[in-house]
Amino acid sequence: MATNAAQSQNAKPLRIAIAGLGTVGVGVIRLLATNHDLIAARAGRAIEVVAVSARERGKDRGVDIASYAWEDDMTALAARDDVDVVVELVGGSDGPALALSRAALGKGTGLVTANKAMIAHHGLELAEMAEEAAAPLKFEAAVAGGIPVVKGLREGTSANALTKVYGILNGTCNYILSAMEATGADFAETLAEAQGLGYAEADPTFDIEGIDAAHKLAILAAIGFGAKVDFAAVSTTGIVQVRAADIAQADALGFVIRLIAEADVKDEGGVPKLLQRVRPCLVAKDHPLANVDGPTNAVVAEGNFSGRLLFQGAGAGDGPTASAVVADLIDIARGFGKSGEVGAPFSMPVAQLQAFGAAEPGHRMERTYLRFTVNDRPGVLAEITAAMRDADVSIESLIQQGRANEGGEVLVAMVTHEGPEANVRRALELLDGSDSLTGEPLVLPILPN
Amino acid sequence: MATNAAQSQNAKPLRIAIAGLGTVGVGVIRLLATNHDLIAARAGRAIEVVAVSARERGKDRGVDIASYAWEDDMTALAARDDVDVVVELVGGSDGPALALSRAALGKGTGLVTANKAMIAHHGLELAEMAEEAAAPLKFEAAVAGGIPVVKGLREGTSANALTKVYGILNGTCNYILSAMEATGADFAETLAEAQGLGYAEADPTFDIEGIDAAHKLAILAAIGFGAKVDFAAVSTTGIVQVRAADIAQADALGFVIRLIAEADVKDEGGVPKLLQRVRPCLVAKDHPLANVDGPTNAVVAEGNFSGRLLFQGAGAGDGPTASAVVADLIDIARGFGKSGEVGAPFSMPVAQLQAFGAAEPGHRMERTYLRFTVNDRPGVLAEITAAMRDADVSIESLIQQGRANEGGEVLVAMVTHEGPEANVRRALELLDGSDSLTGEPLVLPILPN
Repeated sequence: MATNAAQSQNAKPLRIAIAGLGTVGVGVIRLLATNHDLIAARAGRAIEVVAVSARERGKDRGVDIASYAWEDDMTALAARDDVDVVVELVGGSDGPALALSRAALGKGTGLVTANKAMIAHHGLELAEMAEEAAAPLKFEAAVAGGIPVVKGLREGTSANALTKVYGILNGTCNYILSAMEATGADFAETLAEAQGLGYAEADPTFDIEGIDAAHKLAILAAIGFGAKVDFAAVSTTGIVQVRAADIAQADALGFVIRLIAEADVKDEGGVPKLLQRVRPCLVAKDHPLANVDGPTNAVVAEGNFSGRLLFQGAGAGDGPTASAVVADLIDIARGFGKSGEVGAPFSMPVAQLQAFGAAEPGHRMERTYLRFTVNDRPGVLAEITAAMRDADVSIESLIQQGRANEGGEVLVAMVTHEGPEANVRRALELLDGSDSLTGEPLVLPILPN
Repeated sequence: MATNAAQSQNAKPLRIAIAGLGTVGVGVIRLLATNHDLIAARAGRAIEVVAVSARERGKDRGVDIASYAWEDDMTALAARDDVDVVVELVGGSDGPALALSRAALGKGTGLVTANKAMIAHHGLELAEMAEEAAAPLKFEAAVAGGIPVVKGLREGTSANALTKVYGILNGTCNYILSAMEATGADFAETLAEAQGLGYAEADPTFDIEGIDAAHKLAILAAIGFGAKVDFAAVSTTGIVQVRAADIAQADALGFVIRLIAEADVKDEGGVPKLLQRVRPCLVAKDHPLANVDGPTNAVVAEGNFSGRLLFQGAGAGDGPTASAVVADLIDIARGFGKSGEVGAPFSMPVAQLQAFGAAEPGHRMERTYLRFTVNDRPGVLAEITAAMRDADVSIESLIQQGRANEGGEVLVAMVTHEGPEANVRRALELLDGSDSLTGEPLVLPILPN
């Protein structure tokens, strides 16, 4: 019988086509060139780019694409008979990326993509197509950049029923929050700096509103809990409301603030429900996620046998993302997905994924950080604490800022004892419309350690 | 064409035999029972225990083994025709574990093992047998318990040339060092406590001398650098010399002390050489490994495209280890290693692994913590600092403990500027035999951030 060594010398290269030649596409070309021999040794055969497509052919990208076939219409990449795997790096949940992906899998050509939005919205359809065609579909780069966490959940923790998956999935928000922590600057100023440094996009909405993290969470939840991808059910709160003063208060209490994406499945009245939410949280300084600074991402998976596992690394950037894309290609070159045996992209076949209803977490117990901005006048504190009492929210500690700011505004921050989330919401409803409050209160749950 | 879903309903179970029914073996049986349906859905077929072997048949283990075939001679498990994969959980680098493993792979039966010593000593031979037979050989549980770091390096970082792999690979040492940190107690006392709590064995030699970590490092180095496993070349220093006073000094300087296993490949005179060493190091408190406390393990892999990746979790225990064993079984059930395509256990075929010479790290630059215990009399400090000067070691900071202890002994601790490791060794040679010193000096390198 042929050994692996013999196979690798005789084996045909894995032929790929790349759609999209932005920083990640160019990164993939660079990586395949730089580590060519190493990859061939590990994959058992070379990985060769045969064709590319992008918006502009002549643009100088710092890499020579003259030896690759060019397609003006990227969907034509899928029609080529000399392509084993299409690498989709165009982005966007629909449009050309989706058309190309459908065309590739429809023809039985493998698909590797870094497109979190497309997988969050259309992952199930694409996975079904991949199963039908026994073609590999892989998307490691769609979640947490260079961290092999899709593989980590699909294969590393595969023996476990997971109790929880959570983490820091958006590098832009994490950069902003940890920079605010380091400098004491406020959100708007720090966002502008992050944009200048390339850590935030010109239109940062998807990042700072938590939508990007929600895309990634929906993918991880599907893999981790055997759930049908359900992006629409992710409850999402961004970081725009977080002030420098909140970070200072959190620090004084022993916490940092991080945008946390979390998912779990718990029984509600005998029916398992999927919780998926993205929200800024207070994280105790001795929690592993509290030390995740800058654009770094990290994912914690808690299994019923493995215990708590942490995967951490660069969540974005051309190098790390290319690393994830090419790891997928090496898996395919090694035989992953051959005849479909090891190919279920979401860890189990689509037909076996469950459509969980969305969890109603109101009865769940948590500690909460609450911050009010109020008018500096007598009786305000009594009004707030009465609302807490009436909603059965027990206050663990309370800080009122000594002096009003220029607008005559005072900051009141408190941490509650553990209690039902719904009670805190009720307390805020009781205070809704009060002319003591000068702005929307901020509610930050405290991540359990 | 059959879809995965259809396959999973029709597929035959993966039939396994377990050798060794200690805590891990029992953990595997428990895990397979507890998560049976989930595993079948993910693996595409059930995983069924058909036969077991251990020293004592009748022992009460808390699980019912009556429905499994029993073999008094564990090697007979490999001879059975109803077994697809043998799970070796006996331990020991040679003896019955090795005989069983050879018998299984020789017959073309798959092998999953948690045996770090056997893989560190005989991994290449077993991998060659696996290649010849096109049988899967997997050993995720041999390194870092439940953390999928063998997979992480073999597949997650497969696109990268690694610049460095390092981490905390021994939970016993990490438990002792972080407990000493928390309590201020000395080594012997803390070891005794760890033994009482089950974090250290009655004979702790393999752990506290760094041999266990060296086994694991040799395996990771092989996978990460495409090296022939070379356990004999690992340079190993244990933690026995670390005193409570060292931990206190390190703390004052902004560091913690951890047993660090590290490997890299660098050119020495144009020839690539493999560095493998295990030694206690000072780790800056803002380094990800400084927050790894108790019996936790963590591995950092630095790739030329991925950047720094961290894998962290429980490094031992029946649950985490069983999680890793069964993850390997699920991979095999899914088709891993079928016809040998994706099977190279060390990431590339044995014939392509390189036999690097051992690195001579003396010229490498590092900062060092040095601690001397000296007689409390005039001139001692001058003698030490003169030796440093003569060996061209530049001192960054120096602390002399104010008062002598009961034995008239004073502690002198210093941190050097970055300089060649060999210079520090030379300084110690100059001081060798000095009657000013009351004991062996302690040298702890400072891990670069």
